[in-house]
Amino acid sequence: MRPLILITNDDGVNAKGLRALYEVAAEFGDVIVMAPDHNRSGVSHSITSSRPIRVHKVSSIEGLTIYSCDGRPVDCVKLAFEHFCTCRPKLVLSGINHGSNSSINILYSGTMGAVLEATMLGLNSIGFSLLNHSPEADFTHCLPYIRQIIGTSLEKGLPKCTSLNVNIPRETDLKGIRICHQAQSQWVDSFEQRIDPRGVPYWWLTGKFICDNPPEGTDEWALANGYVAITPVHIDYTNHAAIATLKKNYSL
Amino acid sequence: MRPLILITNDDGVNAKGLRALYEVAAEFGDVIVMAPDHNRSGVSHSITSSRPIRVHKVSSIEGLTIYSCDGRPVDCVKLAFEHFCTCRPKLVLSGINHGSNSSINILYSGTMGAVLEATMLGLNSIGFSLLNHSPEADFTHCLPYIRQIIGTSLEKGLPKCTSLNVNIPRETDLKGIRICHQAQSQWVDSFEQRIDPRGVPYWWLTGKFICDNPPEGTDEWALANGYVAITPVHIDYTNHAAIATLKKNYSL
Repeated sequence: MRPLILITNDDGVNAKGLRALYEVAAEFGDVIVMAPDHNRSGVSHSITSSRPIRVHKVSSIEGLTIYSCDGRPVDCVKLAFEHFCTCRPKLVLSGINHGSNSSINILYSGTMGAVLEATMLGLNSIGFSLLNHSPEADFTHCLPYIRQIIGTSLEKGLPKCTSLNVNIPRETDLKGIRICHQAQSQWVDSFEQRIDPRGVPYWWLTGKFICDNPPEGTDEWALANGYVAITPVHIDYTNHAAIATLKKNYSL
Repeated sequence: MRPLILITNDDGVNAKGLRALYEVAAEFGDVIVMAPDHNRSGVSHSITSSRPIRVHKVSSIEGLTIYSCDGRPVDCVKLAFEHFCTCRPKLVLSGINHGSNSSINILYSGTMGAVLEATMLGLNSIGFSLLNHSPEADFTHCLPYIRQIIGTSLEKGLPKCTSLNVNIPRETDLKGIRICHQAQSQWVDSFEQRIDPRGVPYWWLTGKFICDNPPEGTDEWALANGYVAITPVHIDYTNHAAIATLKKNYSL
């Protein structure tokens, strides 16, 4: 029996990256897509609780059924898992995102929100992102790597309670894969003030990503040096190393 | 000079928990509040990028200025830090949330999204949550602990790149503080299907939180046993322990 693979993204059901991903995934198993009906970039792990969700069946052929809904990526995973998957998915995939989700960008990412939600549900899960924001981005050079990563994950599984954050450089002559940890970085100058025609100020989110000289071993180093960066991520946000200091601070 | 304390939340500028928090914080320093103009629970680390943000000055007295805006908690922190803080905040506080943000609930939490954003900006930051969803929740029994935690954090600082996720039981006879790590848990039965008057299905987010027999040392154990749970959290989502296995899986 072919494994079931559930796929979502945050760029919406019509995104080019989603199509690239489900076409590769369909080589490995039966695919169910549940994707937001429009772009939901930057929604992180947010959920829809103040209104109900509607679902639309976009298309269905043998081995590939595509739904869209008016929820967010995390809603997509929860809802598909509970009500639309014909059996337990062997793998949940998210992407291919149009733009990077490396380093601290994972915190803002709807693509990775979906991946972490799947981890919470005990499912093996992988997010794919290309370092190219264009809606017309070319994903061709990503496909052999995505094929390899899906194949390896189905064959060998993933480390317990761990999902993969896969980021792929924009350039096409890639040097291979690196297993990485998340680089330290910063967004600066986050809001730009403007004045409306009535003289009242308003603010646009903007900002500049800063990651100077990322050390070897980080995702940013790998990406800057032409490698596909695979970062294993988990949903335990505890800084275990800080527990001893805090116990001392509170005389516990 | 009194330190500057920046405060936000996700329940909105009129929430009772926000008022409780800024009243305690004002004992320690000058306070600037920048809070969402309405409830933004469950928005996690999401940002507002497709429209600009408007800000409204709600009130200003000596040492306490309150703004609201139509952004999300993470927007509040970014925007206040860049454009409304009169100097670098010594502490960023978020809450007091009406409802728990323990265990995996941190992933969904707008309250903790704001805290983690402050960590990204290099600021010391603490989120406070009471295990009571009611808008009329009584925060009185929380205040001595919040006072102690703010005082200790100002005096001794926080471990590097680490913020605190503080959850407080609902019962009033608390036994003290425990320094914890995040418990493993699950949300199950996430969506309930209904049929509209035209016969078309729709889905409401619902779900049941499951955390059976949390071991001592976890936030859920502490809360179940009458302790205030302080969990140190960070923004490195890497599962460092999984790197070696993955390198082997990819023959690297």
